[in-house]
Amino acid sequence: MKTSLEWIRKQIRENKWTTPTAGLAPGYTQANLVILPKEQAYDFLLFCQRNPKACPLLEVTDAGSPIPRLTAPTADLRYDTPKYRIYRHGELVEEVTSLESYWQEDLVSFLIGCSFTFEHALLENGLSIRHIEEQRNVPMYITNKPCEPAGAFHGNLVVSMRPFQSKDVIRAVEVTSRFPAVHGSPVHIGMPEQIGIEQIDQPDFGDAVTIKEGETPVFWACGVTPQSIAMSSKPALMITHAPGHMFITDQKDSQYSVL
Amino acid sequence: MKTSLEWIRKQIRENKWTTPTAGLAPGYTQANLVILPKEQAYDFLLFCQRNPKACPLLEVTDAGSPIPRLTAPTADLRYDTPKYRIYRHGELVEEVTSLESYWQEDLVSFLIGCSFTFEHALLENGLSIRHIEEQRNVPMYITNKPCEPAGAFHGNLVVSMRPFQSKDVIRAVEVTSRFPAVHGSPVHIGMPEQIGIEQIDQPDFGDAVTIKEGETPVFWACGVTPQSIAMSSKPALMITHAPGHMFITDQKDSQYSVL
Repeated sequence: MKTSLEWIRKQIRENKWTTPTAGLAPGYTQANLVILPKEQAYDFLLFCQRNPKACPLLEVTDAGSPIPRLTAPTADLRYDTPKYRIYRHGELVEEVTSLESYWQEDLVSFLIGCSFTFEHALLENGLSIRHIEEQRNVPMYITNKPCEPAGAFHGNLVVSMRPFQSKDVIRAVEVTSRFPAVHGSPVHIGMPEQIGIEQIDQPDFGDAVTIKEGETPVFWACGVTPQSIAMSSKPALMITHAPGHMFITDQKDSQYSVL
Repeated sequence: MKTSLEWIRKQIRENKWTTPTAGLAPGYTQANLVILPKEQAYDFLLFCQRNPKACPLLEVTDAGSPIPRLTAPTADLRYDTPKYRIYRHGELVEEVTSLESYWQEDLVSFLIGCSFTFEHALLENGLSIRHIEEQRNVPMYITNKPCEPAGAFHGNLVVSMRPFQSKDVIRAVEVTSRFPAVHGSPVHIGMPEQIGIEQIDQPDFGDAVTIKEGETPVFWACGVTPQSIAMSSKPALMITHAPGHMFITDQKDSQYSVL
């Protein structure tokens, strides 16, 4: 497993792997990435504290250090994510595979838990996950539920959706409740219109998936929320991973279970 | 219950209740309090993120606002804690019952989960808690385990101790694991010397309790850690609650269970 992690990280660092990371280095915890100048870091850290289901923090680096010393001490956040997005004043201006020419001495990196961790636990519990079955990206929607604002940061919650039969809905709640550090239990079950989702077959990010007869859509807070927040709040500079192109830590998924 | 909470908050606000809050407004979540100028707030927020077992954050207020709008919107943190401690450059200089003359427009308040919440759950599970039986304060010890530092803040972890018979040790781990927002599962079981506690009958804070034949001491990360951190890190100004004299929120203990 360790070799596989080292191998994939080297491929990513050398820009030989620039596609999504789903299924890579199984069992290792993948993370959403947000990078901001120190000046905005306090407001964003507070935003994460106030919105822990959308932005569960795995690590926050020291300003200027690209090394996530607690969760992946041999990695470098300037190179070890397959694809990055550069947002300026809320606009996506570029996608790049290295931050070499974007790095500044005042940047703070936030590693945010990712649903891959709880999906791993759902699969281990025998639940089938539709977007994996259908080899698509998970469908994600911008809801009408405002996040708790913090300083300059505000905007609506983004959720991911997985459909399940009734008995599996219950088990899915139980299993994901044990992982508060990676979004935890769902934020909504059934009736998409109650959270402002008009067309379930037209997600705002990712791909639509089949919802079969008798299945209920289950919604979890999503780590893409900061990208929607960037678009609402328009910080001068915000760097994120490209959706699906995650940073892979040295930690194991099981370590993030509370029971 | 609501009436009881309103009544006790009024008593505290009018300085008619200036003693510890253990057992008051049962079922309502009590909190440790740390207040710092905005200039130090980022480092302390990062310290809490890096040390979530010692400093699980329930709420962080906007700078200058004494109102904890998410957990107790009708309360005022300048008056509604029975006793406060003022630390200047790491020295405890005063204990006061109101912050009226200490309040500044740049102060940020941190409400940190408290072991009273999980003790309530332990009692509901039929476990007996020695310091409650013996009507003492819980014994607390400064360990030799350094916290993860963050900016200006560093120092060793403080733990609280409760002795249990073997079968109850197991149940205590299970029950408290469900409450990561209020210190969660223990950090150490048995052998106090392994975490630098030389004399179990001489706690650094609180009172010693009886450890009976066959009982194992169980240690949890403690919300008094910030006071030890203040003493090590010596910020120009840090205000805390006096140990045992907690702020009582409007939230119910059960809300902080993850499963």
